[in-house]
Parts: sequence; C-alpha cells; structure tokens
Amino acid sequence: MRLDELPPRENFLDWYNEIVEKAGLTDKRYPIKGMNVWTPYGWKIMQSIDSLIREEFDSTGHDEVNFPTLIPETEFAKEAEHIKGFGKDVYWVTHAGENELDVKLLLRPTSETAMYPMFSLWIRSHSDLPLKIYQIVSTFRYETKQTRAFIRVREIHFFEAHTAHRDYEDAERQIREDLDILDRLMKKLCIPYMVHRRPDWDKFAGAYYSLGIDTLMEGKILQIGSIHQYKDNFAIPYDIQYEDEKGEHHYVHQTTFGMSERLLGAIIGIHGDDHGLILPPAIAPYQVVIVPIPKKGHQEDVYKACRELEDMLKKEGFRVHFDDRDIRPGNKYYQWEIKGVPVRIELGMKDMENNSVMLFRRDTMEKESVPVNSLVQKIRDTLKDIERNLYERAAERMKGRITEIEDFSDFDKDNAPDIVKTMWCGNDKCGQKLEEITDMNVLGTDEPEEHATGKCPICGKGAEKYIYLARTY
Amino acid sequence: MRLDELPPRENFLDWYNEIVEKAGLTDKRYPIKGMNVWTPYGWKIMQSIDSLIREEFDSTGHDEVNFPTLIPETEFAKEAEHIKGFGKDVYWVTHAGENELDVKLLLRPTSETAMYPMFSLWIRSHSDLPLKIYQIVSTFRYETKQTRAFIRVREIHFFEAHTAHRDYEDAERQIREDLDILDRLMKKLCIPYMVHRRPDWDKFAGAYYSLGIDTLMEGKILQIGSIHQYKDNFAIPYDIQYEDEKGEHHYVHQTTFGMSERLLGAIIGIHGDDHGLILPPAIAPYQVVIVPIPKKGHQEDVYKACRELEDMLKKEGFRVHFDDRDIRPGNKYYQWEIKGVPVRIELGMKDMENNSVMLFRRDTMEKESVPVNSLVQKIRDTLKDIERNLYERAAERMKGRITEIEDFSDFDKDNAPDIVKTMWCGNDKCGQKLEEITDMNVLGTDEPEEHATGKCPICGKGAEKYIYLARTY
Repeated sequence: MRLDELPPRENFLDWYNEIVEKAGLTDKRYPIKGMNVWTPYGWKIMQSIDSLIREEFDSTGHDEVNFPTLIPETEFAKEAEHIKGFGKDVYWVTHAGENELDVKLLLRPTSETAMYPMFSLWIRSHSDLPLKIYQIVSTFRYETKQTRAFIRVREIHFFEAHTAHRDYEDAERQIREDLDILDRLMKKLCIPYMVHRRPDWDKFAGAYYSLGIDTLMEGKILQIGSIHQYKDNFAIPYDIQYEDEKGEHHYVHQTTFGMSERLLGAIIGIHGDDHGLILPPAIAPYQVVIVPIPKKGHQEDVYKACRELEDMLKKEGFRVHFDDRDIRPGNKYYQWEIKGVPVRIELGMKDMENNSVMLFRRDTMEKESVPVNSLVQKIRDTLKDIERNLYERAAERMKGRITEIEDFSDFDKDNAPDIVKTMWCGNDKCGQKLEEITDMNVLGTDEPEEHATGKCPICGKGAEKYIYLARTY
Repeated sequence: MRLDELPPRENFLDWYNEIVEKAGLTDKRYPIKGMNVWTPYGWKIMQSIDSLIREEFDSTGHDEVNFPTLIPETEFAKEAEHIKGFGKDVYWVTHAGENELDVKLLLRPTSETAMYPMFSLWIRSHSDLPLKIYQIVSTFRYETKQTRAFIRVREIHFFEAHTAHRDYEDAERQIREDLDILDRLMKKLCIPYMVHRRPDWDKFAGAYYSLGIDTLMEGKILQIGSIHQYKDNFAIPYDIQYEDEKGEHHYVHQTTFGMSERLLGAIIGIHGDDHGLILPPAIAPYQVVIVPIPKKGHQEDVYKACRELEDMLKKEGFRVHFDDRDIRPGNKYYQWEIKGVPVRIELGMKDMENNSVMLFRRDTMEKESVPVNSLVQKIRDTLKDIERNLYERAAERMKGRITEIEDFSDFDKDNAPDIVKTMWCGNDKCGQKLEEITDMNVLGTDEPEEHATGKCPICGKGAEKYIYLARTY
C-alpha cells in the first residue's frame, strides 16, 4: 500500500476527510477547531466558483459591495426572530486593546443586520428600487455539532445577495430570477439540485418563507444554498421605506440568496471516487495536464513537444499545466487523478511518431489516441461532455433515490430510501409526525409545486401537495 | 452653488473626506466608527488593484492562500516583541454563544502568528523552500487616533506576502524581488514612492529590519506598504526548521511584504483635484465613458452611433460605459469627472457629420476632436499617456519637496519643507533629536543608500549616510 493511499470511497466520511487534504484543498490542523486554512489548490477552485457567481450576479444587475465584518449588538437585536435564531451561534467581541467595549460587537453570522441600517439610509424613493447588491465574505458561526471541511465550519466562505423591492410581487420576480441564476450555476458546477419550500418550523430566522436548495450526497441531503422572501419583516424594524410616485411611504419587500463553500463540499462528495476528486471543467484550476512519457535518449524531444503543446493549448484558452517534474509518469497520473484534473494528455515518442497524443478523461477513466490536428476540438468537446456527464449521472442517481410512500405503517428506518416523497395535508403536526416515524427531516414541498390529489398518510385528510423527507447533514 | 458641490482641494482634509463619498467609494455612516462600507464603485477599484497585485505575485511564484480570521491568544503570545507591538491594538473575542471561551481569540491585526504555526508543519526539508505565499484579507486594528477612509480604518483591506528561506541571503534576494514588484505596481497605480529603511525604534514588531514604502500626499508622508526582513526572529519561537542536504537542521529566514487599501487612499489624495478623482487607467472601472449630445429630432441616430461605438471599443478591450440616462450632458460630465474616468467621449450630430468625436482627458481637462477611424489608437495612446503623466507629475512634485539641510540652528518648524534630508551619524539619539527639532518623524535612510560623506548636524561626528524626515499620516 502506498503511503499516501486514499481510503476507498465506500467509507465515505473517512474518504471525504482525507481527500480534502490529500488533494491540497485545505489544512485542518489550524489551532482552532472548525477554522481551516485554504491551501493554494483549494483556494483557486473556490475563487473559480466565486467568479462564476460574480458573472451571474453582475449580469443580472447586482452590484458587489463589501460590508464590515463586525455588527454592533444594538443593530443585531432589532429583529426579534432573527436574534432568536442566531443568538446562540455568534462570536462576541467584548474587548479592544485593554478596554471593555461599551457596545459589544459580533462577528457576522450573515449580514442582514449589518446591511439593513444602511438600506434605510440608501433607499428614499421608488427610483432607488429595486436595490440589488451582493458580497462574498467570511461569516462566522459557533457550530457545536461536529465540524467537517467545507460542510460545517466555523468560519464560512459565504456568498449573499440582498435585494429590496417596492412590493411583494417584485420581490417574487426576484426570486424567479434567482432560480434561473441557480439553474445556470448548478449546471456549470455539475451539481444536481432540488428546491424545497421549507416548512414554517424550519424557515430562516426572520423570513416570510424560505427555499432550501438541496442536493444528495452519499445518502443524505446537503443544503447548498437558500433563497428567502422576507416580505417587510426586516423593513419594519430597520425602517426601510420609500416614497412612491404619489408621495406615499411604504416599506420595501426584501429577498436574499445565500450560498457558501458547501458548493465545493458538494462537488467533492458527489463526484469524487476511489481515485480522488473529479472537478467540473468550469472550475478546475487546470483543465488539462500534460505528462511526458520519457524515453532514454529522447527526453529533450518529448519535453519540447510537450512545451509546444502547452503553448498551443494555452493560446486556445484552456487552463493547461505541463508537468515536467523528474518523477515517474505513473506517479504523476496518480497525483493529478487525486486532484481531479478533467483531462490528461500523455505524450511519448511513439505518439510523436504517429502525430497523435493519448487523451485520458477523469470522469470515465477512458483513454484514447487523438491525432494532434484534431486535438483542440477534441478537448473542447471532451470538457463539454465531462460537464454534461457529471451533471447527468449525478442527477439520475439523485432521482433514483426518491421513493414515494403512501402508507407508513410498516416503514423500516433501517431500510429506508434516501429521499421519501409523500402526500401532505399541510398541517405542521402531520409533518412533524412524519419526521418522527422516518427519523428524517422534512425538506419541505417541492418548488414549483407538483399538482396532485390524494390523502395525508398521517391524518387521512385530503392532500394536494407532496412533502419530501431525508436525512440531512 | 450646486447641492452636491465639492469643497476645493485647497481644504485638503475636507475635500478628501467628501470626495470618497461623493465619488461612491465608501459610506462612512456604518454604525461602528472606522469601519466603513465599500460601495460598488470603490469596491470595483479596490478589486482592480487586487488583480494587479495578484498578477505580480502569481507570476513570481507566490501561491495565494486564505487563513482564518481568528488567532488563539496562545499562538499570538509566542513572539514577545510582536505582542508588545500589537497587543494594545487588537479586538478580542471572549465569548461564543452563551459560553466564555477557554482560550481567547483575537481578530488578526496581521497574520504572522496565524501562519507560522502552520509553516512549522509545512516546512520539513530544504526542498520545501523557498515557501512563498500571500493572501488578501481583512485585518483589524483598534485605532485610537482619528480615523479616515482608506488611510486609517479599523477594518483594513490588506495584502500580505509571507516567505520562508533557507538563509539570510535568500531572504535578501526575496526582498530585491519585492522591490522590483513594487516598482512595476507603483507605475501602474501612478504612485511615486520612496523606500526608507526605518530606524530601529520604528521597525515592525519582531522584524530584523523594516523598509517603509512612502509617498507624499499633500505635504505629509503616507506609508503605503512595508517589506520586512525577519531573519529567524519568528522561526525560533514558532520552531520553523528544515533539514538540509547533509541532514542538519536550521531555522528558516523569513520576509513579509504588506500593502493595504491605503494604496487607494494615496491615489485619491495624490491625483484628485477640484473636479474630483483622477483614476489611473489600469484600475478605472470605466476607462472610457461615452456621453451623447442629443439634438431634437435626432436623438435616436445619436444614441445608435454611441451604442455602436461602445460595442466597438469593448471589442478592442477597453472598459467602456455608454451613459444613456435622460439628464443633461453637462450633468453627466460633472458626475464622471468626480468619479475620475480617464477619458470621456462626446458624440453629437455635428461630430457624426464630420465622422469624428470629441475626446476629453481627465488629467489635463483637454478636449480635442478625433476622427473615428483613428479613435482606437488615439484612446490607447491617451490612456498610456495619462498613466505616464499622472506618475511623472506626482513624482516631480514629490522630488521638489525634498530639501537638504545641513544646519538646523535656525530651523523654522512653521516654514519647513515637506521632506527634510540630512546627513546622519547613525546614532539613534541624534535621530531622535532631529525629530524634536523638526517636529517630524524620521522616515529612515534611503534604500538603496546614496553614498556620501559629511557631518552629523547634531553631534558633528562624521556621517556616511542621509536620513529623511517628514510629517506623517
């Protein structure tokens, strides 16, 4: 066994915990539990994810801003539900230098209470609306559950969009735009997803309703983002009003859209295999790695050909790396497979003589010989196909794990499907009873809602919608 | 007087405080003093500055990382000089949720004490060296002096490179590389600078020596960055050792290079005028703004021509904005001048008939008519010339404010030059006496040192180097 061998993916949590370090994504030995170091490769991938997010939000009229990390307790306390939901999770700054602070400051767990005092200054008239901003920052939550890299950490790399609108309908339009953005993003990140309207007892602290963005990872649901309709729940305590065309004053309606480094966690956990990561081409720091197959007496020729290939592919816009280290090719294969590089090109004397290269794709582990003169198009097609394949095979897997159940009388917790779908009357008590029976969490109703008629399996009353349940991270 | 008129630049601090908000760079009304909101335009500029920095450090073999924001007190306390220097400036996290923490955490004021425990794990052998990393993050200092946007704030947008080397000489080579990087960056940012080796009593807490990167802004010196040689001062307390080729163990030698949002402060303060900001083309969110001059009955023709121009210039790689708002052209001029857009193009019916446009450059406020068929080259040249002109005219101004003084017996504090240059014997006491006499701060000796022989104006002993003094921000 190699010293640096990975545990098999079968032991998922061990595998996950090791792959994040073996692939060079993070170092968990930082001396605060749940606060990890982003090492170069991991940070590059996260920055690529951030770039995709920026592209989407910039092109839909959102402005990027950057708010302070600290929030005064006085502002935090203004929305009662919100502080109830977050109060136990926050880090408190009580001293500065040798002084005790008059007003305690907290490290933002999310930025509603930092931003909305400013919204109240920025928004005066209907012409200031809609206001659409976002930021990408660190947020902080004092997690008491077991931490896990990218999935449950105490300093979170976080994206948050905040919008303000003249009325509920315009805020709803924003949420539809958010869902379109989400779909485009998830295709590029190769993350299949479901959107669930969370039950009332599980919505975001202060929200009118919450949409959870859920994906399936190794039998459990991972929430990778959320979209909230706040109505005027924050506008009232933060006094965010505008004057309409007739001179009348109204509270704004607000929405938020949040995502985090969990996107990276999902990519790792959904696509990775016994050989390591498999990265979606859109965010791979290197989309193509070139490995020379040296032959005694011909090393220089091979290296020269590799270098020319590297230059050519760079000019075509690919992110390419020529691995010219003095170690065995097999060792290089092994290392780049762990790091999840989508395409590997192997080039030796025999290939040179045939005017071809060997092309290996990480998702299927297939190799084929490709003539040099059609290589550019072949790589372009292959990267596209990897993106499609990663998304589709994961989407199918997720779909295959949803089982509709009508009768829970002999429900077997130990042999349960990953995701349970059932009719629901809409009563919270029936939903919570389902959680008890299944030992799962209610994810909510699907969004948009699938039309149906049937009976609630708990109370037997008429039901017109489905509810989904699963175990969650 | 317009409602939104700027105070004249003559009243520099008033002007500065207003321009940062009028130009849309920041909002200082956030409810924590010295912690400001980066509004969209300001954040875009800062991100462009960050991009230039990333380019330089990526291309010189530095890897970007991202460390946690919080540092345990136990790690912070390891280097005695360092904690003495920073202890009074830090924000302390003492509670999380409802619990008091066993080990207090502090918000990083800089990241030596966060990074070096990890360096001690990462560095094993000579083949791990040099280690060159950087990050761009928020740092926090509890400033007790008056705060000022971008110049003295309590949450600081900060760049820091940290390197580790096998010996002092290799660390010195790094510092020479840093000085090359600095020079390229400052040319693009149009910031003339001087490098001073700080006197011992003013070096960074824990450093073997410190180089201050200084620029002149309205009569006072603004330090916009620093480079430190740490020798093994941190390697010893943090136990950062490597094994050499012979199996012997040595402590590494370290350097850091730090810069911050003060770069933006310097750009604002050095180049701005009565009309507002003047942005260096390399970091202007819009390098070119197009303003239509409408004429009754021809509005559509003019707008169409503007839109075509915008598309054409975008394709050529310029950052262009077509201002199609329904307000008077003069109003648009006024607003884009405040925001410092380097080039404005005005296009009306008369220009269209002549197949030309009016081109206005912000640095000289000059206008000229330019034929459309030579416009692309003209804009390219003009942007290059603005970059050169901004740098050179500020460099000349700075140079003109340095006065060499040999005899301080009738030194007049109230009529002093901005920067005083004088011979110095090298004795700290003479340096400090000079500070008293001039009511200025010793900036240090110039780096690289100018050769000279003369007499120390204080003790009369032989002197072989110059020392520089000035008032500082």
